[in-house]
Amino acid sequence: VSFFRSRWVKPPDRLEELDTAELAPGFRASGVACGIKPRGLDLGLVVCDEPKVASAAVFTANAAAAAPVRVCRERAQRHSLRALVANSGNANAATGERGVADAIRMQEAAAASCDLPFPQVGVASTGVIGEPLPIAEVERGISEAAASLRGDGGASFAEAIVTTDRAPKLCSVRCDGISLSVQAKGAGMIQPGFATLLAFVQTDAVVRSPGETLRRAADGSFGRITVDGQLSTNDSVFMQASGASGRELPDGLLEAALMQLALDVAADGEGATRVARVSVSEARDDGEAERVARAIANSPLVQTALFGRDPNWGRAVQAAGMALAGDQVELGGGDVDASDLASDESEVELALRLGRGRGAATVFCSDLTYDYVRINAEYTT
Amino acid sequence: VSFFRSRWVKPPDRLEELDTAELAPGFRASGVACGIKPRGLDLGLVVCDEPKVASAAVFTANAAAAAPVRVCRERAQRHSLRALVANSGNANAATGERGVADAIRMQEAAAASCDLPFPQVGVASTGVIGEPLPIAEVERGISEAAASLRGDGGASFAEAIVTTDRAPKLCSVRCDGISLSVQAKGAGMIQPGFATLLAFVQTDAVVRSPGETLRRAADGSFGRITVDGQLSTNDSVFMQASGASGRELPDGLLEAALMQLALDVAADGEGATRVARVSVSEARDDGEAERVARAIANSPLVQTALFGRDPNWGRAVQAAGMALAGDQVELGGGDVDASDLASDESEVELALRLGRGRGAATVFCSDLTYDYVRINAEYTT
Repeated sequence: VSFFRSRWVKPPDRLEELDTAELAPGFRASGVACGIKPRGLDLGLVVCDEPKVASAAVFTANAAAAAPVRVCRERAQRHSLRALVANSGNANAATGERGVADAIRMQEAAAASCDLPFPQVGVASTGVIGEPLPIAEVERGISEAAASLRGDGGASFAEAIVTTDRAPKLCSVRCDGISLSVQAKGAGMIQPGFATLLAFVQTDAVVRSPGETLRRAADGSFGRITVDGQLSTNDSVFMQASGASGRELPDGLLEAALMQLALDVAADGEGATRVARVSVSEARDDGEAERVARAIANSPLVQTALFGRDPNWGRAVQAAGMALAGDQVELGGGDVDASDLASDESEVELALRLGRGRGAATVFCSDLTYDYVRINAEYTT
Repeated sequence: VSFFRSRWVKPPDRLEELDTAELAPGFRASGVACGIKPRGLDLGLVVCDEPKVASAAVFTANAAAAAPVRVCRERAQRHSLRALVANSGNANAATGERGVADAIRMQEAAAASCDLPFPQVGVASTGVIGEPLPIAEVERGISEAAASLRGDGGASFAEAIVTTDRAPKLCSVRCDGISLSVQAKGAGMIQPGFATLLAFVQTDAVVRSPGETLRRAADGSFGRITVDGQLSTNDSVFMQASGASGRELPDGLLEAALMQLALDVAADGEGATRVARVSVSEARDDGEAERVARAIANSPLVQTALFGRDPNWGRAVQAAGMALAGDQVELGGGDVDASDLASDESEVELALRLGRGRGAATVFCSDLTYDYVRINAEYTT
């Protein structure tokens, strides 16, 4: 089965899929168990051997952003990141000054172990919030991870960043003379209930505007999925481009890879069984279409209809009317196509035409199921 | 058991509770079965015998408002409403021109049966959306209802407007020489899944600014509850004040009655087992507090924690951070009081201090349970 298995993702032609553990040439990674989680790998490190790496990162807009996000939000725009260190099992969020100090200690440990200047290390965390990191164990883990870096360490790294994901999410491809590897995690749920998303992109392509390139690809992929409408404190997406291949990224490759991973995250949403593509057209402008699409995608009534295979177009109309509150729209069954919801497909279409203009937007959501309630209600602090 | 059973509701002293079927003096009501629903009462009528009634109404802001809302939204501000006709089983929403014509026919039928001018009749509907009203049956029902109006018809009327409510919601009280009766419905769910709220207030008190009085009381009660964050196409609250007692409404009476009914609606939310009062304080202003309180109250993570009796303060922090996205806040466990969630109480407190100013707001929500998913996923059109 190809990594690009969604009917909504169209990668470039001439694409070769590699062993997913393989990183793009010039990158090495590892994952180790340092004891944050009761079992399994929980500390990952990825390093670019090329000194002149171009890098970029995008972070959550949550005002209560976690310590690692705060620590590297500004620096990531100013410095090129050679190394990225990430842990699972603890989000280092709502941890105050101690949390910030711990995130910096993670950077320092990785910088020392990899013999890099401190500002060239990025840091990310995911897991339980409100609890301090076991920083001594984390520091030991970083040292161990640095000693076990390998060119085929992508799988260990991906495993080290998962929380309640059903499976690690990663890919490795070659296209038009460049290589691209990505590891991501996100399942709409970690211990206390955040839909934290982390993603790490490595490529030997030349990327001239890494910030803009990553921002656009992330907006069009991870930015378009919703499991429960909740914005995490820890979301972070990093890209490192070594440029060693001397060639540029083929059009659409990064976008396709991130889109497939985003759909994998939505499909792996807490208790999710299906994903819907919500398409809104004929809005006054794209912004209005986006508001309406998000209202539909985040409606628990729509999400339960998706779960129940109920082609209930009235729920889409109600959500659209809510998003346009104060205005007046005439919407009927002829403006909605919800019939796909009744199908046996795991990827279904839900389309609404507003009849107000030419704006359009698309958002992807997972369904709201008994398991969502079980996972989130039965966890006890 | 007193009608005012919530610990959050403080009615005025000197209050006498009457048989809930009793309307305020000078009002008559009825409920009949006209065949919209497969069984049970589905058509209600309430009439004020006093020609100089002062009236007011507030309606949903949903842009896809139902036909009855569109038909009486403007008129209700300009004319005093002597009669109100309401049906359950069909929302007359997303029904286009035919729906508007049907809503007007309901008004005309009630006006003819009660011998009133057409503009003095208000209309409301709740039930399945996207289907035309069986208007001939509705007209016959209106005629029958007009023939069976009674001073103790409040219970029949309340029964005629329910959909999936576990029980009719109504009260009748006397205080400081005036009487007040209210009938409401709302359970977060009717056949296709709308949290439609309808409420009807009758009083013989003198109400000099009925519009402002009702708006303020409704904002402070029905406007502060959320079951699933979904704004209905049909929400309508009506008040009729005959002034026959010659006395004004006692301070806080209308507010207490609507607040208790609002809490009854939240407690009767789809699958709900508990209600939380979410209090946000120390915001920059009341508007910011309100945004944060709503984000917390509507978070499925918070609502499942409420169901699971999980004092998970991190979920409140995450929702608050989402509401304040783009800004930065430092929040920890000491800023949240979520311990009440673990109690055996059916009404619990969840409080968050933002440490940014003096703004405050309170919102009430119900929990997200397996039954919410069952009710909404297992219905098949």
